[in-house]
Amino acid sequence: MNWENKFAHRTGLMKRSTVREILKHAARPGMISFAGGLPAPELFPIKETAEASHRVLQKYGSKALQYGETEGVTELRDYIVRQFSRGGAKVERENVLITTGGQQALDVIGRTLIDEGDAVLVENPTYLALLLSWRPFGANFIPMASDQDGLRVAEVEQKLSQKPKLLYLVPNFQNPQGTTLSVERRQTLIRAIQKSETLLIEDDPYGQLRYEGDFPPSLLELNGSINGNVVNVGTFSKVLAPGFRVGWVIAARELLDKLVLAKQAMDLHTSTFNQFLIWELIDSGVLDQQLPVLRKNYRERRDLMLQEIEEHFPEGLRWTRPQGGMFLLVTLPSGCSARQLAMKALERNVLFVPGDDFHLTGGENTFRLNFSNASPEKIREGIRRLADLLCEQLQKHPPEKAPAGVAV
Amino acid sequence: MNWENKFAHRTGLMKRSTVREILKHAARPGMISFAGGLPAPELFPIKETAEASHRVLQKYGSKALQYGETEGVTELRDYIVRQFSRGGAKVERENVLITTGGQQALDVIGRTLIDEGDAVLVENPTYLALLLSWRPFGANFIPMASDQDGLRVAEVEQKLSQKPKLLYLVPNFQNPQGTTLSVERRQTLIRAIQKSETLLIEDDPYGQLRYEGDFPPSLLELNGSINGNVVNVGTFSKVLAPGFRVGWVIAARELLDKLVLAKQAMDLHTSTFNQFLIWELIDSGVLDQQLPVLRKNYRERRDLMLQEIEEHFPEGLRWTRPQGGMFLLVTLPSGCSARQLAMKALERNVLFVPGDDFHLTGGENTFRLNFSNASPEKIREGIRRLADLLCEQLQKHPPEKAPAGVAV
Repeated sequence: MNWENKFAHRTGLMKRSTVREILKHAARPGMISFAGGLPAPELFPIKETAEASHRVLQKYGSKALQYGETEGVTELRDYIVRQFSRGGAKVERENVLITTGGQQALDVIGRTLIDEGDAVLVENPTYLALLLSWRPFGANFIPMASDQDGLRVAEVEQKLSQKPKLLYLVPNFQNPQGTTLSVERRQTLIRAIQKSETLLIEDDPYGQLRYEGDFPPSLLELNGSINGNVVNVGTFSKVLAPGFRVGWVIAARELLDKLVLAKQAMDLHTSTFNQFLIWELIDSGVLDQQLPVLRKNYRERRDLMLQEIEEHFPEGLRWTRPQGGMFLLVTLPSGCSARQLAMKALERNVLFVPGDDFHLTGGENTFRLNFSNASPEKIREGIRRLADLLCEQLQKHPPEKAPAGVAV
Repeated sequence: MNWENKFAHRTGLMKRSTVREILKHAARPGMISFAGGLPAPELFPIKETAEASHRVLQKYGSKALQYGETEGVTELRDYIVRQFSRGGAKVERENVLITTGGQQALDVIGRTLIDEGDAVLVENPTYLALLLSWRPFGANFIPMASDQDGLRVAEVEQKLSQKPKLLYLVPNFQNPQGTTLSVERRQTLIRAIQKSETLLIEDDPYGQLRYEGDFPPSLLELNGSINGNVVNVGTFSKVLAPGFRVGWVIAARELLDKLVLAKQAMDLHTSTFNQFLIWELIDSGVLDQQLPVLRKNYRERRDLMLQEIEEHFPEGLRWTRPQGGMFLLVTLPSGCSARQLAMKALERNVLFVPGDDFHLTGGENTFRLNFSNASPEKIREGIRRLADLLCEQLQKHPPEKAPAGVAV
């Protein structure tokens, strides 16, 4: 069998996710991982899930094990309706599609909308697996700059005049930067989007994981109407557990109809059992119990990681200070290679993800640290290991003389 | 928002599944449905699933709720390895990808392999949702004739000389015909495939549901080597429950690597909880208990449906007599419209799926009946309602005079 000429053109555009490849090392004994976007496993509602499984099978019986409608389980769709019907956005059941995790929500949007060469505005850096999903559909990604208040909206207005098909953004605690779009910028962005023919995809997996400050209004809510150009994507992965693979899309009916068609072909529907399970965990109050627990623990971990970094990292580095979510981004002196640093860190049993994969341009001197997964003890130990490595490397190759590509 | 010009070219090739649309009527009170490919809900292992959920969370804890590897849970992949390492086919873990149901297995194969215009041989009729998945990728379907022994292999050999990229087939109790490929034809087909550069996709969701006769060797097994041109697709939906959405692909490593890349972008991985749950149901013997129960019950339903059809259907009709699976196909006199018949049957609270959607050419006078889902009482009543309708319609429009498009 000659495999060379067998694959579709789009398969040539598929790339392995560095994150997922790096995660394969995470199981090594002694390894401390800041690599994945993984929730803290010790905080999962394990006992509650066992009890909820029992109740789901008692209450719904065979319905929870049978084929279901592509659109999703009514109880769960109606919960999304209630959660998102705020401000002027009157979400209806027909606007909601339950998906197999947030990743499928993004993938089905790309599949339905993106033709070869379509312009797609994305933050630079942006969510890696969005790039991996939409590139094979032919997306022509156009990077947009951002700062500590998120996307620089003034630049976006200019780019919208070129009529891109989509604008993708993570407004809260962005992956990989941890930054949040300010309320003022949200308002400006929505005004610009409403005047355009561009669809704005608001991907908000982390919004509930806020550790300080007020919850800003969602872009969907600010848009005021469900039948406009804002599409909301969410997931239960970060607030309940990723192992269920349950997420959603909220969109205008015209789009939702097409998303349903595409999803039928992709996996018929999301696991009925898991949809009922998520609904039971919500309805019995487990989600409401989990949120404060997650916020308290993740805030402590974020604070600890920032404190350790400030105390131990050598001079010349910068990092973001997120108000929530799971990640912060570290920037090395320019000319330093975070990818080579990651290789050396692996030898010392510390994992993180180099930033260049999240970037369309630049980012070689950045890396992402996750603070939700490791225990406080491991955060302390891991950041110290990393700090020692950074100090050694920066001493060997001080930044002003560092030739391009040398590990920090 | 102007939606007209927003969608991708491929979205114009997406079609609504008649089966899934018809199923929305199935909940109407008094309705008897022979439409879906649904297992009997009263035979689902409900209590066993509740118990298995408990044990999964006890045994595997947070691992069952966390993100997992795209390839799947090791325990489940190794089970597939053991099941399929027969004859010369030495399947290894690296040949197995766990998917979100059998539908995703087919979809990820199409996504990875099919370019605009690629020739794909399929049985005529064939599995509807395969057509719905692969058409938007640009598949150029070429219909192949079949008879009571399945695909007419002699004709296939001729078509292989035109170097189609793929050949898709359901060898056991084909959907919608219920027919099975004979052992002799399997051997001839494999010899022809081995001489070709065409990939054969063996989709076998029903193979375990055999009610008489011997189990024929799979095409994967007959091919003798895992690194050849046979890809096997399967699912736990028909033998345990569809609500879990767990299936698999077995393929050569070169292909599997690409399938993994594509699946990463599609949904990261299949629900870890459900994968462990399926494995626990297998490991604790529930699957082995289920199979004889399903075979006994479905055999009785098949026999009853065939008997009622023979007794009550008017002359001039033909139907298949499957040795297993879930479906049989009825052929009306030519010139009769099964679609119009379906509309009239709906008025009498009987559902079935017209055959033309499964066909690339012809089939307007055929319809599919499912015998696994309805209880024996409902099968008896439903077939009688249908027989009454058929007799009335055939009396009104005897087949020799029936103008095209008139309901039977």
